[in-house]
Amino acid sequence: MTTLSSIAARLEGLAIEVPSWAYGNSGTRFKVFATAGTPRTVEEKIADAAKVHELTGLAPAVALHIPWDKVDDFGRLKEHAAGLGIALGTVNSNTFQDDDYKFGSLTHSDPAVRRKAVDHMLECIDIMDQTGSRDLKIWLADGTNYPGQGNMRARQDWLQESLRQVYDRLGDHQRMVLEYKFFEPAFYHTDVPDWGTSYAHCLELGEKAMVCLDTGHHAPGTNIEFIVAQLLRLGKLGSFDFNSRFYADDDLIVGSADPFQLFRIMFEVVRGGGFGPDSGVALMLDQCHNLEEKIPGQIRSVLNVQEMTARALLVDTEALDTAQQAGDVLAANGIFMDAFYTDVRPGLAEWRESRGLPADPMAAYRASGYQEKINTERQGGQQAGWGA
Amino acid sequence: MTTLSSIAARLEGLAIEVPSWAYGNSGTRFKVFATAGTPRTVEEKIADAAKVHELTGLAPAVALHIPWDKVDDFGRLKEHAAGLGIALGTVNSNTFQDDDYKFGSLTHSDPAVRRKAVDHMLECIDIMDQTGSRDLKIWLADGTNYPGQGNMRARQDWLQESLRQVYDRLGDHQRMVLEYKFFEPAFYHTDVPDWGTSYAHCLELGEKAMVCLDTGHHAPGTNIEFIVAQLLRLGKLGSFDFNSRFYADDDLIVGSADPFQLFRIMFEVVRGGGFGPDSGVALMLDQCHNLEEKIPGQIRSVLNVQEMTARALLVDTEALDTAQQAGDVLAANGIFMDAFYTDVRPGLAEWRESRGLPADPMAAYRASGYQEKINTERQGGQQAGWGA
Amino acid sequence: MTTLSSIAARLEGLAIEVPSWAYGNSGTRFKVFATAGTPRTVEEKIADAAKVHELTGLAPAVALHIPWDKVDDFGRLKEHAAGLGIALGTVNSNTFQDDDYKFGSLTHSDPAVRRKAVDHMLECIDIMDQTGSRDLKIWLADGTNYPGQGNMRARQDWLQESLRQVYDRLGDHQRMVLEYKFFEPAFYHTDVPDWGTSYAHCLELGEKAMVCLDTGHHAPGTNIEFIVAQLLRLGKLGSFDFNSRFYADDDLIVGSADPFQLFRIMFEVVRGGGFGPDSGVALMLDQCHNLEEKIPGQIRSVLNVQEMTARALLVDTEALDTAQQAGDVLAANGIFMDAFYTDVRPGLAEWRESRGLPADPMAAYRASGYQEKINTERQGGQQAGWGA
Amino acid sequence: MTTLSSIAARLEGLAIEVPSWAYGNSGTRFKVFATAGTPRTVEEKIADAAKVHELTGLAPAVALHIPWDKVDDFGRLKEHAAGLGIALGTVNSNTFQDDDYKFGSLTHSDPAVRRKAVDHMLECIDIMDQTGSRDLKIWLADGTNYPGQGNMRARQDWLQESLRQVYDRLGDHQRMVLEYKFFEPAFYHTDVPDWGTSYAHCLELGEKAMVCLDTGHHAPGTNIEFIVAQLLRLGKLGSFDFNSRFYADDDLIVGSADPFQLFRIMFEVVRGGGFGPDSGVALMLDQCHNLEEKIPGQIRSVLNVQEMTARALLVDTEALDTAQQAGDVLAANGIFMDAFYTDVRPGLAEWRESRGLPADPMAAYRASGYQEKINTERQGGQQAGWGA
Repeated sequence: MTTLSSIAARLEGLAIEVPSWAYGNSGTRFKVFATAGTPRTVEEKIADAAKVHELTGLAPAVALHIPWDKVDDFGRLKEHAAGLGIALGTVNSNTFQDDDYKFGSLTHSDPAVRRKAVDHMLECIDIMDQTGSRDLKIWLADGTNYPGQGNMRARQDWLQESLRQVYDRLGDHQRMVLEYKFFEPAFYHTDVPDWGTSYAHCLELGEKAMVCLDTGHHAPGTNIEFIVAQLLRLGKLGSFDFNSRFYADDDLIVGSADPFQLFRIMFEVVRGGGFGPDSGVALMLDQCHNLEEKIPGQIRSVLNVQEMTARALLVDTEALDTAQQAGDVLAANGIFMDAFYTDVRPGLAEWRESRGLPADPMAAYRASGYQEKINTERQGGQQAGWGA
Repeated sequence: MTTLSSIAARLEGLAIEVPSWAYGNSGTRFKVFATAGTPRTVEEKIADAAKVHELTGLAPAVALHIPWDKVDDFGRLKEHAAGLGIALGTVNSNTFQDDDYKFGSLTHSDPAVRRKAVDHMLECIDIMDQTGSRDLKIWLADGTNYPGQGNMRARQDWLQESLRQVYDRLGDHQRMVLEYKFFEPAFYHTDVPDWGTSYAHCLELGEKAMVCLDTGHHAPGTNIEFIVAQLLRLGKLGSFDFNSRFYADDDLIVGSADPFQLFRIMFEVVRGGGFGPDSGVALMLDQCHNLEEKIPGQIRSVLNVQEMTARALLVDTEALDTAQQAGDVLAANGIFMDAFYTDVRPGLAEWRESRGLPADPMAAYRASGYQEKINTERQGGQQAGWGA
Repeated sequence: MTTLSSIAARLEGLAIEVPSWAYGNSGTRFKVFATAGTPRTVEEKIADAAKVHELTGLAPAVALHIPWDKVDDFGRLKEHAAGLGIALGTVNSNTFQDDDYKFGSLTHSDPAVRRKAVDHMLECIDIMDQTGSRDLKIWLADGTNYPGQGNMRARQDWLQESLRQVYDRLGDHQRMVLEYKFFEPAFYHTDVPDWGTSYAHCLELGEKAMVCLDTGHHAPGTNIEFIVAQLLRLGKLGSFDFNSRFYADDDLIVGSADPFQLFRIMFEVVRGGGFGPDSGVALMLDQCHNLEEKIPGQIRSVLNVQEMTARALLVDTEALDTAQQAGDVLAANGIFMDAFYTDVRPGLAEWRESRGLPADPMAAYRASGYQEKINTERQGGQQAGWGA
Repeated sequence: MTTLSSIAARLEGLAIEVPSWAYGNSGTRFKVFATAGTPRTVEEKIADAAKVHELTGLAPAVALHIPWDKVDDFGRLKEHAAGLGIALGTVNSNTFQDDDYKFGSLTHSDPAVRRKAVDHMLECIDIMDQTGSRDLKIWLADGTNYPGQGNMRARQDWLQESLRQVYDRLGDHQRMVLEYKFFEPAFYHTDVPDWGTSYAHCLELGEKAMVCLDTGHHAPGTNIEFIVAQLLRLGKLGSFDFNSRFYADDDLIVGSADPFQLFRIMFEVVRGGGFGPDSGVALMLDQCHNLEEKIPGQIRSVLNVQEMTARALLVDTEALDTAQQAGDVLAANGIFMDAFYTDVRPGLAEWRESRGLPADPMAAYRASGYQEKINTERQGGQQAGWGA
């Protein structure tokens, strides 16, 4: 059995991007509950993200969302973040909140609307130039609610044409990651509903276009780790949006609904070469904290990813391979489960302490007084949310 | 084959309650698109509902939502509606938009919150006394997002205790209809997730408690017409919330996603004695018109129910019974499909004209100038939506 | 945190019924793979079950399936089993393999077929009288494949009428457990598709009728632990058929697809009073070992249940309650997860040794030579399977 | 509105391949019910298929399954079929019923097993050379039941390697169609689970490799017509396996579970250029007739495809386009639904009569005496099924 100490060095390679919007309010169509201490500005979001990183050592970058995080001077924002030990990561475009996008953005039948959406993407790349971000993330709400409402077929062509314009603007070290989603907010057809569609478009675009896999964006029962393995094999896995779900795109804390699934996913990430700073795979969170506190919710999330990564690294792959070759189903499954059932928490606490981090980041946050501080300080203004 | 003329009289029995909130704006957590002409007041919602009834003869009542439709004088509202040929129907309670309900309402661990929710329900019954409404509809957003978050077991007892207090306040001719929902906005457990739970609570409460079946509130693949048949058999089907879906609780126009399913449901409604004014089953719509125009969306909806009811009434049940008894699978299915594939639209157009209604209510609405009129008149004020 | 030693005594209460048919061959509609050493007779099945119990101390009873396990003298079979330390448990009826049941059994439109099915159930009760079994398990394949094929509504009445005849024959200490299943082998409607239907029938029958919950028999996404909690609250949970699944009724080893789910289920079993010899809840396995070895497959299965039961018993319910009352979502979830993430395997190994059992039953089985012995001895004859 | 007469010529282009195995017995893992008149030989299967074509004019080819339909002289079989007016179509390989394939075939970790599976495929191509068939269909049961059981990642490489060997053997006018399936008989991971995987492999192989889409092989809620549109756009849709489902791979009569879905699929087939003899898209049935009579089951199936094709051809695409461009959701959906709700049956009856076919093929079959004849004649021998 591999021991935790033997994987300590590899664990160093874990770096997770946290989303700026996770620190703002979010909710469902029924209600958005506000909480005390919620940031009003992107600087406050970055401060919260910095706290997560300070306590865990796992979250050195924060993903931005445009226009929610738009500022006049992104160069200055970058410096501000750097001062807090945080890099600015993936830039998320938004083509779902303008009235013009009611019937689509990059896929709209009206060329003027497509142009507008493309221009927004180009603006995001301008921002990337300033922030030094590598990835432009494109998630589209595009789709239709009723059979016959739109021309599904033509929209694919418009999509490719629009993406091409954005792709051609990417700098040498920049990439586009195209996210797919099974459904929502469109309820009949979605223009990028599955990994196959994202893959086909990325393939057509070129090597700077990669697939973004959101763990909550699949049909019930989908074997997500298979898709991870497949995309890594095809060289087209660009990034993850981590979260978890019981039903639809619930956006719960990663690993909370099915920790075993997260373990299986991280095992394929590691096996397929998707782990570590040189892998080209960005591990991001994309979650909602509708009911729970946001900063500890993010801490819990990155710890969950760390714990499952540790377990995945503990799998005795040599013994596993032998059992697989022998067709010994129970032995192979047993070796796999041994790693999952190993309690890595004490070992990870030691690992943290040896690196000057608190053994228990959740407790350390509670003890830090940070929440009380921001609850007091952040009065007035407009709390951040999905609309601002 | 049964002909349309032979069922003309039975079709008179079709009456559908339209929801006041369908005329307001609605959307997803990503965006609510506003439309011109959207009502600002409950009186304007009722005016729109009256238009739907005027053109279809199918929608003589409008369901209210409290507090969205709260007015100072419900007696006067009732008269206003009556003046437009509309009755006030089911009163819908709302215990999901107050901050106190973040962790539950009738099921909250805090008795004070449960009390507040019960009091809201009692207020709704007060309103029913004024509006003459028969049914109090209870749909609860109650549930939890994470395993361990709440005590699922205790919450059932709290639920029953709370419901009992509401039930005991019901007048002689009043009822409570308890709606179930598979998930959303709660993403781990929902306190009333399935018909069995609603049924068990209603059974414990007494004969004035009935189940409300929302056609969008089931797990993927659920045979809804079976539940209809079962609840009618058990004498506990109180009302429908009609809509349709491809994925989750999409709230699309009833019959739009799977018209054959709506046909099968209406067949069981008819077979089980759930059709007609004396059946005790209220047929309500509960939909969102996120993208399409609202008033014609409602017209389309009640027409869809009418068309599928007509088809259901056309099933040659005698021949069907014979084929079923003979174990002739293809013949039985064929008889059933014959009714579904019959184009009832020309016959229904005649039926309408014979009753002084426009042959084509959709076209009649377009020609009426009503939309242009409200687009012009309804300037300023706050458009109605889920929050107001 | 509760420690394993503190729950050692409670763990004694765990007793799992293994199914005789798990030791026979099983498969899919595409192929049934045979394995060496497969039993030819019910006596050999019981011998295998005895081995499982010998090595784990967890499986003191074996469930029978009639007619697959039919013998001339069940009294003698009982003695034979007792000699091996095994009791005969639940008797499973079979009304799905006779040509007469093509269109239903207890729900068939032909009274003669219903009579035949009832008679089979009565025969099973006769057998129970001899074996001393408490429970008659009724799982029905009844349903239809095409809309219109059968009269769903009438079949419910026939079902109740048939069940009544069986129920009335039950002895004072006997029970009927009525299993529900979402679908398969019927592909349009199933006559007992959900817990609500089973519950309604059992309620009508009387206190000796209880619901049987098969963990693989639900729609995608169903919160099974909620149903467990609800049925325990209603006093109607009779027994479990344990297995697990990723897709449909996959019948995989319990806990293998979603160990966290099994933990949550066992937590509700314990919380709701369903755990222990006096609970009235029978914990049974109902699985297929299509690819893996059968005896170690059963050992793995009962160990999985034990491990998750131990974790469930470890939940610090007092702290959990406090966190729940405080609305501290992350703390409550954290307390719950602490128990799940605890590695109970070393403690359970000690527990076993202290009771004279092998620390590692899987290894003990491999070392026992039993498999080699039966592979050699069990030559000729007809290997047991679903048809024999 | 387009009229049926205007599409009469286009309807001539409809040709459906029926599967030889549909005429044999099939069932579920619980039971296979036998029926009178079931063929014992491939010649009898072809005779039944010829009857379907005689009465409908829709089914000029029969797909073969090797080894179930293996004969000594395929050239002679081809002549025999031609004499009955039937062509031999797609050849289906079978690598799921040999004990060697327990853990995989083209994806097995053992090169010898992969070799055996490849050899079987090559044998199928030999047969295609004799039958003149264009397509080799590859559906793999390959996958695993438990996490860790197999190396998902490596199996993809083995799969590509194996497929390459088969691909290279294809003649100039031959193709390989690679079918995907969500799950079953594998219950954890399937090696070709989705269209993306099939597409990626076909793309790597070359232009003679195409995707086969089985309408029953998707996750719940999947928008199949979108996949049809996408694959046609990508030039990689090779063939359909038509059937329908409510739950899993139910293999019900095409169009029976969701006729509206079949309509939407056929609309995309037509729109995307997949309709007609020169399209390169083979429309095949792949169904089970577990309960219903087989020959009329096939007649019903091809008629369903014809009826939905007719409706799809009736869509007023010009008006639809206008409404879509205008963003008129209700109008666009209404135009689409108008075609679906049109009762094409009388017009199709006329269409048949004008071509010398019976107006009502179902009635014509019943009147033909064919079933009684084969019931009488086909005594003794072994009825065909999935194993023979």
